[in-house]
Amino acid sequence: MHSDPVAALDIGGTKIAGALVDDRGRVLLRAQRPTRAREDGETVMGAVAEVLTELTRSPQWSDVRTLGIGSAGPVDAIRGSVSPVNVPGWRDFPLVDRVRDIVGGLTVELIGDGVAIAAAEHWQGAARGHDNALCMVVSTGVGGGLVLNGKLHPGPTGNSGHIGHISVDLDGDLCPCGGRGCVERIASGPNIARRALDSGWEPGADGDASAAGVAASARAGDPLALASFDRAARALAAGIAATATLVEVDIVVIGGGVAKSGEVLLDPLRRHLKEYATLSFVQDLTVAAAQMGTDAGLVGAAAAVFGSAVTKAPAGAA
Amino acid sequence: MHSDPVAALDIGGTKIAGALVDDRGRVLLRAQRPTRAREDGETVMGAVAEVLTELTRSPQWSDVRTLGIGSAGPVDAIRGSVSPVNVPGWRDFPLVDRVRDIVGGLTVELIGDGVAIAAAEHWQGAARGHDNALCMVVSTGVGGGLVLNGKLHPGPTGNSGHIGHISVDLDGDLCPCGGRGCVERIASGPNIARRALDSGWEPGADGDASAAGVAASARAGDPLALASFDRAARALAAGIAATATLVEVDIVVIGGGVAKSGEVLLDPLRRHLKEYATLSFVQDLTVAAAQMGTDAGLVGAAAAVFGSAVTKAPAGAA
Repeated sequence: MHSDPVAALDIGGTKIAGALVDDRGRVLLRAQRPTRAREDGETVMGAVAEVLTELTRSPQWSDVRTLGIGSAGPVDAIRGSVSPVNVPGWRDFPLVDRVRDIVGGLTVELIGDGVAIAAAEHWQGAARGHDNALCMVVSTGVGGGLVLNGKLHPGPTGNSGHIGHISVDLDGDLCPCGGRGCVERIASGPNIARRALDSGWEPGADGDASAAGVAASARAGDPLALASFDRAARALAAGIAATATLVEVDIVVIGGGVAKSGEVLLDPLRRHLKEYATLSFVQDLTVAAAQMGTDAGLVGAAAAVFGSAVTKAPAGAA
Repeated sequence: MHSDPVAALDIGGTKIAGALVDDRGRVLLRAQRPTRAREDGETVMGAVAEVLTELTRSPQWSDVRTLGIGSAGPVDAIRGSVSPVNVPGWRDFPLVDRVRDIVGGLTVELIGDGVAIAAAEHWQGAARGHDNALCMVVSTGVGGGLVLNGKLHPGPTGNSGHIGHISVDLDGDLCPCGGRGCVERIASGPNIARRALDSGWEPGADGDASAAGVAASARAGDPLALASFDRAARALAAGIAATATLVEVDIVVIGGGVAKSGEVLLDPLRRHLKEYATLSFVQDLTVAAAQMGTDAGLVGAAAAVFGSAVTKAPAGAA
């Protein structure tokens, strides 16, 4: 298959990135602005417009027919709107219409950022060749996306794979989402750090009180730091096992800042997975580190467009 | 579409049922034997052979080309084998080959019993017209199956939708599956009864110490009986919310003996669902009672065959 490049947008709480991506997943051109997430919705949209305008000035723009958006969620792919938790100025914000106003007659597709990551890892990364995969990000939050039967599974509204907000502790602490004992409430970076501090852990000489600081202490054998990572790993294991038991994925790919802690997280995660992934058809679940870098969201938004174009093309068009 | 009838087998821990089912889901002929689950594997297979032999004697048998099997799980659709928890004589039992030996050259398809229930409810019951549905049985165990994107989602090995063995209480009681805090460990009939008895509940004048007895007491306002059902409802709500958050179902259909308790279970279930199904895209989840009766497993096994035949038919054959 050879196709024209597509445009991709990656909307996060920190940055808004745009790119032109070719059908082999190569980023041909990149533009980026800070999100200014604490400002009003129009200011945030202004950053999107700047990124898009920069892309449209490229000579390759004339070949672009479709634009994929991966956005912090929840998103609503049916209405084309987004309500990113970390961008309070956008609630049911009609992002697809507003983007169309700028780029003219392009086909625009919207998916959640976890779904985009899964699309990227399935296309180019650690989930390549796996027909059923869960791809996750463990970072400030915990997110994910699913590949089922060899295809991305965005779900009707583009939000499938939201593993961060499934409860693995039905009597657990309240989560900002309104739930209790969500995976994110136990396993995100800020919660790893908070739990360590609450248990009496003290940062090292560099004063780093973040999850990275806890990871450094854990690597040095500090029992309180190890305990906080162990708890996060247990919650992730229960959530991953639940996902595999529900939809039969055979690989889980884990990326994000906290996952960069490496074996401090992955070793107890693999151990706890044996406790929760007990049925015969989930016992051989593989845990792999993400391979896509910071461009994962952009490449994934492009992958979703390419995948969908292939799926929707009339017979003989491929 | 008009098709020949298909043969269906429903393999459970109590009974083995067989039928011929037409393309409108009508059971044309039925045969049944007790499973004799505590006896050796060949004795259980003998019951299957008797059921099949009864079907093959029908004049309609000559029109049958395919046979669908819904079996207590876990199953292995890839190897064609089954290991039903409640049939200890069958471990990796090559059911598909053994059935083929009896019925000759038919195409045989194997799915888990929860998947079969979902197929039946989607085809003829409460999930009709829903493209994304979770169908559950709450009974001696807790099982389920999924419809995604308008199609049954058996998963590669035929076991998807195993909601009874996802953990909603990562520090909870050990489950016979080896996990902890599984939905089934909290919400199945025997666990509802055990928890009520442990808390000091006493059966009524009829001496019924089962979940049905607890339900009767709960209906009469007994606080210990109500508390045991509330706990079951909470576990089910957490599990259902997790499923919806992971794959975006918009309806959950609940059947089985415990679900027959009606509002004693469903009222607290709907209440707790609001606590766990918090994200925008899962807030409108519908809870509905199952509509298929005791033939659900047979009709579902047939539905899976009809659905798969439609999917796999070459273009123009429909």
